[in-house]
Amino acid sequence: MAPHGEGSEEALVVEDENRKPISSILIIIAMQTEAIPIVNKFQLKEDLDSTFPKGVPWVRYHGFYKDLRINLVWPGKDSTLGVDSVGTISASLVTYAAIQALQPDLIINAGTAGSFKVKGASISDVFLASDVAFHDRRIPIPVFDLYGVGLRQSFSTPNLLKELNLKVGKLSTGDSLDMSPQEEASIVANDASVKDMEGAAVAYVADLLKVPAIFIKAVTDIVDGEKPTSEEFLQNLAAVTAALDQAVTQVVDFINGKCLSEL
Amino acid sequence: MAPHGEGSEEALVVEDENRKPISSILIIIAMQTEAIPIVNKFQLKEDLDSTFPKGVPWVRYHGFYKDLRINLVWPGKDSTLGVDSVGTISASLVTYAAIQALQPDLIINAGTAGSFKVKGASISDVFLASDVAFHDRRIPIPVFDLYGVGLRQSFSTPNLLKELNLKVGKLSTGDSLDMSPQEEASIVANDASVKDMEGAAVAYVADLLKVPAIFIKAVTDIVDGEKPTSEEFLQNLAAVTAALDQAVTQVVDFINGKCLSEL
Repeated sequence: MAPHGEGSEEALVVEDENRKPISSILIIIAMQTEAIPIVNKFQLKEDLDSTFPKGVPWVRYHGFYKDLRINLVWPGKDSTLGVDSVGTISASLVTYAAIQALQPDLIINAGTAGSFKVKGASISDVFLASDVAFHDRRIPIPVFDLYGVGLRQSFSTPNLLKELNLKVGKLSTGDSLDMSPQEEASIVANDASVKDMEGAAVAYVADLLKVPAIFIKAVTDIVDGEKPTSEEFLQNLAAVTAALDQAVTQVVDFINGKCLSEL
Repeated sequence: MAPHGEGSEEALVVEDENRKPISSILIIIAMQTEAIPIVNKFQLKEDLDSTFPKGVPWVRYHGFYKDLRINLVWPGKDSTLGVDSVGTISASLVTYAAIQALQPDLIINAGTAGSFKVKGASISDVFLASDVAFHDRRIPIPVFDLYGVGLRQSFSTPNLLKELNLKVGKLSTGDSLDMSPQEEASIVANDASVKDMEGAAVAYVADLLKVPAIFIKAVTDIVDGEKPTSEEFLQNLAAVTAALDQAVTQVVDFINGKCLSEL
């Protein structure tokens, strides 16, 4: 339905925005191993006078590629423990701070993920998520239950999907690398093909601040396969980042010169 | 050990800060029902030209009480679903944005929580948390496991504890109102007396930005009791907020006129 009355001016502004070529994209990646090949690919440079407040470990890389300004943000290493700041809290904080500082036209959350034999997935498959939701926020009170699940559609990109050879599936997010029976039930309820630790948090913040977001996830482990997730994840992490890097490059090449409504 | 060399100037500044009377406190509360009695008690006013970006539902109340500037921040109602924006992601975002905007001397995260018969707790008990950690971030890879648990000590307040009649215990945080067997095992491993949905997230952000934080949690349900948590929680929520309100007032009265090192 066409917008009417008081909303129409704002609607026209949004429509205009959708018809302007995309000029600035923000890539959000949770782990350094996942980020570095993409940083190198686009020849991004580290921001040394940080955009972010003193004390936070968040790292921004930036540069120009074709007609696009690219910012890649990685939550950095935990300052006490030295491991990548994975999970929903760091992801939501860097997404918030990066949107505020950089005002991107589009967010790409890229990373590795688990997937499922029953969904026909193999190691190194790359998925573009159609929807994202949480699987570890059970609040059994009416309406709060829906808030907990936090189902959101990712920005619709029918042309990108037609052009590129990516699988499509729903993404489910939780803060554990493994999966309890309760979380498995939620993942099944979410009809998820891919399981990660950040996507739905990035989607939540992008939605709050009205920035379109898409999710590219490369499969490092088959959750319902024979090997334990943590072992399979570490074994495949480096190799799968090559598939991730390639998919992100294809997506960025496709985006270049187009407006949001052409994706 | 006394600080030496390059670090000593910064250490002196920190020491000076600890000796100045606390002038600005930030109270972070997840639910409106928990927040309103405290807003009324301190006669705080809603900030209508929001400190926060357009589109976010976060609400700030502010005012002066005795010698203290008080800001109370509540993450507001989810703009699609209309329920309180509970849980770790909203809590971490408002904590981050409020610290950036308001530069408080001390954070008080106040709210309701579950507790345990085996820890001798009763409905309406009020706990001051000694430590906070997560119970739903299982990452079974060395060091990442510790990152997931995210154990942090709350700011030490020995004098406040001596003066006020509060229970002391460890707080464990997760995004579900209920508790899976895996989460129960983590709560036991965390030796937690209280279980909430925000504390460890507030602690994480406060620690990132180097703001001292304390945690006041009033018991709405006995997790290992007979009644289901969601039923008991809703039944007791309004009544227990009176106990919470009273405890927060006592803590704020105690803080007034003191510096951090006197707490």
